[in-house]
Amino acid sequence: MIPDLRPLFAPRSVAVVGASADPSKWGNVLARGALRGVRRRDVFLVNRAGGEILGQRVFRSLADLPDTPELAVITVPAAAFGGVVDEALAAGAKAIVAISSGLGEHDEEGRRIEREAAAQVRAAGARMLGPNCLGVSDAGEELDLSWSALPPGPIAFVSQSGNIALESARLAVRAGLGFSRFVSLGNQADLVAGDFLDDLAAHEPTRAIALYVEDFRDGRAFVAAAARATAAGTPVILLSGGITAATAAAAASHTAALVSDARAIRAACGAAEIIHVTTPRQLVDAAQALLSRGRPRGRRVAVYTDGGGSGVVAGDVLAAAGLEVPPLSDVTAAALREQLPDTASVANPVDFAGGGEQRLMSYADVGRLLLESDDVDAVLLTGYFGGYAVDLPALAEEELAAAGALASAAAETSGTLVVHMSYAESPVAALLRRAGVPVYDDVASAAAALSLLARQAESSEPLPPAELGLPPLAPPAPGYREARGFLAEAGIPFAEARTVTTRDEALTAGSALGYPVALKAGELLHKSDTGGVVLGLEDADALAAAFDELSARLGPQALSVERMARVEDGVELIVGAKRDPRFGAVILVGLGGVYAEILDDVAVALAPIDESTAERLIRSLRAAPLLDGARGRPQLDIAAAGRAVAAVSRTAAACPAIVELDINPLLVTQHGALGLDARILLS
Amino acid sequence: MIPDLRPLFAPRSVAVVGASADPSKWGNVLARGALRGVRRRDVFLVNRAGGEILGQRVFRSLADLPDTPELAVITVPAAAFGGVVDEALAAGAKAIVAISSGLGEHDEEGRRIEREAAAQVRAAGARMLGPNCLGVSDAGEELDLSWSALPPGPIAFVSQSGNIALESARLAVRAGLGFSRFVSLGNQADLVAGDFLDDLAAHEPTRAIALYVEDFRDGRAFVAAAARATAAGTPVILLSGGITAATAAAAASHTAALVSDARAIRAACGAAEIIHVTTPRQLVDAAQALLSRGRPRGRRVAVYTDGGGSGVVAGDVLAAAGLEVPPLSDVTAAALREQLPDTASVANPVDFAGGGEQRLMSYADVGRLLLESDDVDAVLLTGYFGGYAVDLPALAEEELAAAGALASAAAETSGTLVVHMSYAESPVAALLRRAGVPVYDDVASAAAALSLLARQAESSEPLPPAELGLPPLAPPAPGYREARGFLAEAGIPFAEARTVTTRDEALTAGSALGYPVALKAGELLHKSDTGGVVLGLEDADALAAAFDELSARLGPQALSVERMARVEDGVELIVGAKRDPRFGAVILVGLGGVYAEILDDVAVALAPIDESTAERLIRSLRAAPLLDGARGRPQLDIAAAGRAVAAVSRTAAACPAIVELDINPLLVTQHGALGLDARILLS
Repeated sequence: MIPDLRPLFAPRSVAVVGASADPSKWGNVLARGALRGVRRRDVFLVNRAGGEILGQRVFRSLADLPDTPELAVITVPAAAFGGVVDEALAAGAKAIVAISSGLGEHDEEGRRIEREAAAQVRAAGARMLGPNCLGVSDAGEELDLSWSALPPGPIAFVSQSGNIALESARLAVRAGLGFSRFVSLGNQADLVAGDFLDDLAAHEPTRAIALYVEDFRDGRAFVAAAARATAAGTPVILLSGGITAATAAAAASHTAALVSDARAIRAACGAAEIIHVTTPRQLVDAAQALLSRGRPRGRRVAVYTDGGGSGVVAGDVLAAAGLEVPPLSDVTAAALREQLPDTASVANPVDFAGGGEQRLMSYADVGRLLLESDDVDAVLLTGYFGGYAVDLPALAEEELAAAGALASAAAETSGTLVVHMSYAESPVAALLRRAGVPVYDDVASAAAALSLLARQAESSEPLPPAELGLPPLAPPAPGYREARGFLAEAGIPFAEARTVTTRDEALTAGSALGYPVALKAGELLHKSDTGGVVLGLEDADALAAAFDELSARLGPQALSVERMARVEDGVELIVGAKRDPRFGAVILVGLGGVYAEILDDVAVALAPIDESTAERLIRSLRAAPLLDGARGRPQLDIAAAGRAVAAVSRTAAACPAIVELDINPLLVTQHGALGLDARILLS
Repeated sequence: MIPDLRPLFAPRSVAVVGASADPSKWGNVLARGALRGVRRRDVFLVNRAGGEILGQRVFRSLADLPDTPELAVITVPAAAFGGVVDEALAAGAKAIVAISSGLGEHDEEGRRIEREAAAQVRAAGARMLGPNCLGVSDAGEELDLSWSALPPGPIAFVSQSGNIALESARLAVRAGLGFSRFVSLGNQADLVAGDFLDDLAAHEPTRAIALYVEDFRDGRAFVAAAARATAAGTPVILLSGGITAATAAAAASHTAALVSDARAIRAACGAAEIIHVTTPRQLVDAAQALLSRGRPRGRRVAVYTDGGGSGVVAGDVLAAAGLEVPPLSDVTAAALREQLPDTASVANPVDFAGGGEQRLMSYADVGRLLLESDDVDAVLLTGYFGGYAVDLPALAEEELAAAGALASAAAETSGTLVVHMSYAESPVAALLRRAGVPVYDDVASAAAALSLLARQAESSEPLPPAELGLPPLAPPAPGYREARGFLAEAGIPFAEARTVTTRDEALTAGSALGYPVALKAGELLHKSDTGGVVLGLEDADALAAAFDELSARLGPQALSVERMARVEDGVELIVGAKRDPRFGAVILVGLGGVYAEILDDVAVALAPIDESTAERLIRSLRAAPLLDGARGRPQLDIAAAGRAVAAVSRTAAACPAIVELDINPLLVTQHGALGLDARILLS
């Protein structure tokens, strides 16, 4: 159910409970912020001491207010928190912003208190933000119930960390950006990150949603809401924390959260076209790119500059970011030649070669020419432009005029223009940004922006999980043979095998299957690490010897005799699934066998996926050309591999008891796909 | 021969030829700059028009000067350049700084003029910088013959691009760094980048050398000089351009340079412990790290912050940069517990959890505790510190005191401290930087700095080329069989093979070698791409059919019948060599077979290398564990592979006619290494 957040973002009245006269206290910051919106709504200050704060009467209790406080901000000590929530609800509050800390992030008693408060809030038809949060703001509504006034702008920021929000805000302001709304999530006792996405997507002033989230709670609901937002045209940028084991522990400790692993978050982002970033700087860089008008159709970039070195460095950085810097056509080169002095280079990168300051309008004219050219999909201006006025003030007017003309060219041609300049805080930079042209102070950021825009424009369809529609599956009994049987039943073909307990049974099995065979211990999870697998047994003598050796070393047990597949005929994949505490079953496919862990070429998606999505997932691997007939190799049966991956994903999604599942390797040949080993870890 | 650069950096007198009264002209900028050093040396202004500039008498000709101009700066038009060089040498100049452009970068005539000038300069026992350069400066000598005065500091910057130098300088100043010397290389008609390294390594105020170079000229001399500088304790940071085909063309066009490819530059950097960067920002970030006192012994980092999100993000970014964020010992945790409020987390990352502003000195105390701890090798402070004074001026004094105490802790413990802060331009940041603590405004930059320092500290011995000491080798005749024979003679074992021209000869060869065999067309460079290779022929019938098919399709020719190696018994490497126009022979080893191009796991070095260096090169591959018995696989014969790689490197180095050479694959097994295919491209 999509919550009604109007009372949170646009309340008709606000009460600040715990208001304070001490300017170093939160209760004072909040009171001042609330009073900035007094033209829009009633503001009530509440403190048991009564008196007057900031020239306003202070009520001793919520019960004393002359009118209903639609939104109550609570910044009282933890011990008083539960009682104040009761009072707020009794007074008719429909939204609560709980600043108070020392609750769920602190101990079990705190968790109990905030759980109870959340239940009462919901029972009263209200919603609560926090506790242990830094408040909320809405620029358009003049609602400022947070630590500091942010400049208005197109970004809505939802954050589970105050510092990250603060750092991002500073960087955003430097990039000429501002905020439509700010939401500090805190402990998410009631409202969680995903609850805000639909409302923000429908919020007119919000043109991009940025989030910092450590605990996604209902991860599938988060993904579904993010997919609705991106489909509606509002990009979602996610900075997520807790990717490594150590920091996952840290994240868990500081917000009492359950943290998802990096692959689950990657799968979630892939399912909903969420832009995933890892630092505040990347977040703001991405926002600047996504808020610009540019949407290139491809990866071909024209670079222009005055000073060869900048062009060379930009070209290298673009190539490293996966973009192309193609030669320009003769027509374009001839047109450039007319604009530029003889010494200029009209190759790509285009280099004015010191001719820039002779006629600064060249920056606009050349920009327009490249934006109009069919030779490229986007244009990068790099280098000194923006700095002429700084070093030679006499050029200020001409440089600003050139920047204006360049911005017009970008608008009129609907081309994609990105700018890197040393002087990224100059008036020229500000002018370009106001016109929707992203400007970066680091050429690598500019390249990342172009790469992001190109990826957005490519047919990078999301990989959404399919509807399950299958009855829940009972898990198999523990053991290798059982895992194999369970997966075979789910539709994954395996190499033929016999379970044996004596040497004679092994030899009978060997004759029946045909040599060479493999012999495997059945009970060990990491068989190949512990010497529980013997491959390539060419005849009965070799099998007998291997049987004796394994039995002696590992003790008597059921062993598996299996027909050896001709591994050299195909490519080994690893197909796995893992249950994430927040996002549920995640399916993984990668280059398999011994290469899997060393080369880490894997793709992930939220399970289940259908067969065509599974094929797309396989084709997204760096190693995909190996399956697809690269360099004279045979075309392998990717469809069969896709069927196996889809089957694994359905199994993992339908059987919640499966914590981890691997088929490693899945041998893909010209004529099918065959599981050669399997492992299931149950909860 | 190491040039004497004293007349360039510390001349006893300077003449500015082409001095101008017009403040927008170079001749004016240079005159003003030269006059700033007039306390140190005679400054003569020269212009054919005579008169007075900046209150100084202007001489009409160098011949009119009352004394010898030891250094002549020339900024006359290209047409007058040659004549002025003659005059300068006649007047006794020992150093010439040639600003004049429109010469070698422009056309063949310009190249002729600057070549002749350079020859005359050298004949006169003088040296020349440029032409087409932006001048030179030396802060300690008050020599300022460039476009703008740079703040003094520890970095010497040698650049082939003015814009890159300008951008780097702006970033450096922002990071509290400055410059000991600046050298603009221009067209390198006489002095080239490598000529400056010995002098800069011996230059007391220079503590790091940064370079932007597109054309290395004598690449081996550059590497040797850089190795001497790094061995003497002066780090060398290289921003190199022209790595992609497109930008190599751009680099070539704008300085008429011969550009090395990315792998050759990587090999060069590996040979001399040069820090390779790709943007000005990375260059300045690296300089800040290398100029700090920190030299961690390993990769374990303690993170501390006030605000969990910053710690989580930092931990993730550190892990992505290859660093570890290990749990802290109980002893350390207990000691931290004493310093911090109850709500703080004393795991790693350490999180004050909002307790920072209660006692800002905690930042120093916790920092010291972590710096002293044996649990980690380095400490990262991340987040809000530096901003307290900005938001709450009353805290300014306490925050600066804490920063001072933290800097003292870093100095007294000899620990490695790196700081990331949102407020990286605050007084606190400046204080820390002055004390030798690197401060970054991007947590990814801080992580890159820690990673760089850790790599520096590891036994990352360079991979220097060996002395050749072998007579030059005559190249083989063209052809597959000839390449194979040539390499076999050089000491690389190959699978047994017979050259055949008829079907009968093929069948005889098959019987002699034993089936399965492979059949290969001999003349094609990319045999496997064009269907010129048939593998796994199991018997005579299969061989006969393959012979007929190949002969019919490719025309009658000599074919090669080869014993099939059991590829599944080993790992395929690719071993290659390439001749770079500037760095000479470069050896390459990587994961081979079809994986080579898809996964791009390659290591490079300047050839030749000896066998132990070749082994180290192989062990630096990501895929090295595959050779080294990972996951229950057999230990392969890395020594044999090393011998083969060393032999290839000697061959490529000794035979300049070889442009490219590949052995793909070299099959490494438990009992040796065997070349299965070879290709040589001759000039």
